[in-house]
Amino acid sequence: MPQTILANLRRFLAANGESALVVPSADPHGSEYLPDHWKLREACSGFTGSAGELVVTADAAGLWTDSRYYLQAEAQLAGSGIELFRLGVPGTPSPWAQVAAWCQPGSRVAFFGQLHAHAEITRQKAALAERGVTLHPISEDVIDDLWPERPAPAAAPAFAHPDALAGQGVADKLTHLREFLETEGADAHVVSALDAVAWLMNLRGADIAYNPLVVAHALVTRDEAILFIPVGKLPDDVAAGLQTSGVTLAPYGDFLSELDRRYGGGDDRRYGGGDDRRYGGGDDDAGGARVWIDTETASWATVDRLRGARLLEKPSPITLFKAIKNTAELDGMRRCHIRDGVAMVRFLKWMEEQVPSGRVTELSAAARLLELRREGERFVGPSFETISAYGPHGAIVHYAPDQASDVAVGTDSLYLIDSGGQYLDGTTDITRTVCFGRPDAKMREHFTRVLAGHLQLSITSFPQGTCGKQLDTIAREKLWEAGLQYGHGTGHGIGAFLGVHEGPHAISYYRCRGQALLPGMVTSNEPGLYLPGQYGIRIENVLAVVPDPERTRPELSFYMFDNLTLCPIDRALVDVRWLTPAQVSALDEYHRLVRATLLPHLEPATAGWLMDATEPLAK
Amino acid sequence: MPQTILANLRRFLAANGESALVVPSADPHGSEYLPDHWKLREACSGFTGSAGELVVTADAAGLWTDSRYYLQAEAQLAGSGIELFRLGVPGTPSPWAQVAAWCQPGSRVAFFGQLHAHAEITRQKAALAERGVTLHPISEDVIDDLWPERPAPAAAPAFAHPDALAGQGVADKLTHLREFLETEGADAHVVSALDAVAWLMNLRGADIAYNPLVVAHALVTRDEAILFIPVGKLPDDVAAGLQTSGVTLAPYGDFLSELDRRYGGGDDRRYGGGDDRRYGGGDDDAGGARVWIDTETASWATVDRLRGARLLEKPSPITLFKAIKNTAELDGMRRCHIRDGVAMVRFLKWMEEQVPSGRVTELSAAARLLELRREGERFVGPSFETISAYGPHGAIVHYAPDQASDVAVGTDSLYLIDSGGQYLDGTTDITRTVCFGRPDAKMREHFTRVLAGHLQLSITSFPQGTCGKQLDTIAREKLWEAGLQYGHGTGHGIGAFLGVHEGPHAISYYRCRGQALLPGMVTSNEPGLYLPGQYGIRIENVLAVVPDPERTRPELSFYMFDNLTLCPIDRALVDVRWLTPAQVSALDEYHRLVRATLLPHLEPATAGWLMDATEPLAK
Repeated sequence: MPQTILANLRRFLAANGESALVVPSADPHGSEYLPDHWKLREACSGFTGSAGELVVTADAAGLWTDSRYYLQAEAQLAGSGIELFRLGVPGTPSPWAQVAAWCQPGSRVAFFGQLHAHAEITRQKAALAERGVTLHPISEDVIDDLWPERPAPAAAPAFAHPDALAGQGVADKLTHLREFLETEGADAHVVSALDAVAWLMNLRGADIAYNPLVVAHALVTRDEAILFIPVGKLPDDVAAGLQTSGVTLAPYGDFLSELDRRYGGGDDRRYGGGDDRRYGGGDDDAGGARVWIDTETASWATVDRLRGARLLEKPSPITLFKAIKNTAELDGMRRCHIRDGVAMVRFLKWMEEQVPSGRVTELSAAARLLELRREGERFVGPSFETISAYGPHGAIVHYAPDQASDVAVGTDSLYLIDSGGQYLDGTTDITRTVCFGRPDAKMREHFTRVLAGHLQLSITSFPQGTCGKQLDTIAREKLWEAGLQYGHGTGHGIGAFLGVHEGPHAISYYRCRGQALLPGMVTSNEPGLYLPGQYGIRIENVLAVVPDPERTRPELSFYMFDNLTLCPIDRALVDVRWLTPAQVSALDEYHRLVRATLLPHLEPATAGWLMDATEPLAK
Repeated sequence: MPQTILANLRRFLAANGESALVVPSADPHGSEYLPDHWKLREACSGFTGSAGELVVTADAAGLWTDSRYYLQAEAQLAGSGIELFRLGVPGTPSPWAQVAAWCQPGSRVAFFGQLHAHAEITRQKAALAERGVTLHPISEDVIDDLWPERPAPAAAPAFAHPDALAGQGVADKLTHLREFLETEGADAHVVSALDAVAWLMNLRGADIAYNPLVVAHALVTRDEAILFIPVGKLPDDVAAGLQTSGVTLAPYGDFLSELDRRYGGGDDRRYGGGDDRRYGGGDDDAGGARVWIDTETASWATVDRLRGARLLEKPSPITLFKAIKNTAELDGMRRCHIRDGVAMVRFLKWMEEQVPSGRVTELSAAARLLELRREGERFVGPSFETISAYGPHGAIVHYAPDQASDVAVGTDSLYLIDSGGQYLDGTTDITRTVCFGRPDAKMREHFTRVLAGHLQLSITSFPQGTCGKQLDTIAREKLWEAGLQYGHGTGHGIGAFLGVHEGPHAISYYRCRGQALLPGMVTSNEPGLYLPGQYGIRIENVLAVVPDPERTRPELSFYMFDNLTLCPIDRALVDVRWLTPAQVSALDEYHRLVRATLLPHLEPATAGWLMDATEPLAK
């Protein structure tokens, strides 16, 4: 099947005089997770990893992926004739650099206009021009012909996210957005990121695995708000509600043509274009409309339809609106974390009882946890694929068990479970590392050094203006002291019944782009440690940024974190020698909170288990 | 005098049909400190602060400066008709935005082509074009006419920095640089930053206050190295030495015309230009030369002379070569820090004896310290203007005493002295905060919280790839805990008998651009705390980055810091309640090092003082 599609692709290239095609892992919305309809790269390479880019020429093909997927890609590409390029290995060319190496000067290279960010294409166009290679957009419509059994577009119905949970109605959100447009002198704003559309329209759906999102675009002008959504997706009452809030509905497929009609310049170049564009001025000028769009994330095709407009190239303000949760959203996050904590406590108790029998495997454990989450109210589904990993599997950061890899959870090593839920009132993400037997001294030291960073970050107060990159270090100091390190960030933003990963903030030495942490933001706190062949450790809670009234002075505000996640941390793995007194108090205080909050929701046997699990260390 | 120059400027603008002129605080080399010859902004505004930009139109003028200089600028601009714009105050327009506000659409705005970075002009050109305003370069030659008493160009003779101190000869440095040119496919590299020229040519001078630099440009091609330097600057033997190393000497004034001759494209556009430029290719192509230049720092005029070349727009590799000190440079840095420590110890003992008399002032203390530094071998001069600040003056971060502000150093508050020396074998930068009376509990808590951060950073081991922004936090945690903060970075790079500020690394939450710290780099470690109206605290040592053999494993290297600065820290200000046991040990260990290293160089009375000052806290 992959070979068929690959052959189709090559025939298409030959017929159109193109020397190469780049097939990214992408949809027209810049999504992290893809609807099946857009898994073309997977379909024509056979490689199922979440990250990977394919380049196809008449006689060569390459797939680029990162270290998480080296082994999987080797296995899945074997015999395909597709060469594996290992991103992150020094000397590995980028896909675009390899395109240039494979093509003669004078070659034409094709790309799907909706599947690459405009800024990426602009940069690559310039770089390839140096080699005499030109880039040409092709329409995604051809994919249907190239891919015989292409899955249909996602067809799950959309549903309303009630104002009581969203904390703000759509009309209010549009008014607020328009204030920003006015301040920036923008006439319109194009929104294609699915979580931004969902947030703005108080709409949820099930078009993408793990993410309660709906495939749609939005265009907001000073007096219109158009939602481009597949016909039939919206139940009548939801459609009516949106219309009452001032939203016009349009077919999903009209998005690009409508942009073109309004901002393309047209034949009469009504809005000016070319050189005139530079002189288009303020409100009273006759120049083109000023459209706010983030060319770093918007697709090439989208930006191309704005030829007649002047662009305000900045990240969408919705990213920040969405990241700063209001009271209703924070309340919802707190409530769903109680239900999630109840499921986790029942799960850990069950594991403690069942693991010694030797019959619990990584997969059956994950299934049991899902069952327990389903017992909670408002549960919709997992927020990402569960990492249930025993022993050496825990050292593979993005491990997820399958039938082939599944092993029994034992009592000799460490068990790591990283999972989360989508609830109608919020999103959770929690990791616990547990030993069901007797941990040795090294395991306890390693676990406690990770815990020290986790606790220290959770009790840190920091001044306004501090960004996540600055805080990332705090979770690492106790590991660095012992010559240890982990290769991922310490925290990512989390949506309110939206994606489990969201920006613009990140507690990360590499992902943070300088966005200061602000009250209402929600972040994970997940330091770890990975010893290949032995075990992995990660301890993850979700935190909310809140004001710190005690330290705030008139001239300088301080903020601190509030733990949303409620689940005990394995005390048997703690060796207090590696904790400061403040960290010991922080753990005891956290366990008091977990106990007090969850106890009323637990049946007697589980309540007893929780009492034991949350006993203070300091007596 | 400023009014005369301003009037001349306006006449010049009127005569040339220009609506405005921007006068930055700059020279053609992007220097931090300016030779007097280039202090045009100061000469035509009367404002003497080190940072400030002037905009002049026919009937308006504005000066932009930052919070360090608000008061000084207000005083110096009073009655000048020049409006003060306070950078950092919300709503303050940038100078360029104000230019656009002052000028009608269709206006021409002039700038000095050598005094602005090319990238800055490119950005402003685009922004001003939106308002219908165009930018036009003017030659710096007109400054002589506009400024009647303009100081002559700096005329101090240059001298050789011996290979024994530089650790690498010029010929070797050129070979190494050319390897980088080859790797990047560059045919030539333009060097205008004065410290880069000085490093590359093993040349020092005295053209700029506090900086042992020579005004010169360099051009390095695959087979030539041309030093553009004022005729007569080089003693014959130094000139001969450079020529032996493969350097061709050219008059300073020929720099731009020589670039133009080689890379300007000329009338016959020998190297191609316009559209052809995009297709110029590899070594065997007939396209233009590929010139490596950092358009973010190189002047507009310089880049303009490269019209016929293809540009490789990247920071100069010399910035990193220079930052990573070799063994000879590190040895020199260590040796000069011993002499600097001897001067500081004598100074602190002298202050302890003299201050109670009430006759020592901020200025006389600074003079005494300079005298003591002069007694040391190889001393050349101060590395920056000494900050000698008692009580509330210490809370002004960039305070330097003058006759008007000078006060007696007393015993009731804290005294802060931040100073450094240029030595033939290295550069120093040290801050100590001392109490010559009995500090109260609050002073001790504040001092010790700053010290905790200083010590914690100095004993941190960190993995390869860590950048300064990540480490900056470590120096702040103990302050944040008490709701305190300081508004500057924690560390800057320091040259080896070069500028006291150098990149590309910085231990700073805002200045660090992601450059990882590497063994051989040198950085300051200077957390502080400033209480307006009360006192300031800063504790600064110079550190070298060195390998950490104990923590390094085959798969991951760890680095740590080595203290170069040798001078006791005031133990009377330390309250051990605010230190961890590891920090107490670190201070004691540091004091043992200071004692052991300096003792052999001290006369008996000072040796006795040092013995007391370095007694361990933990007994």
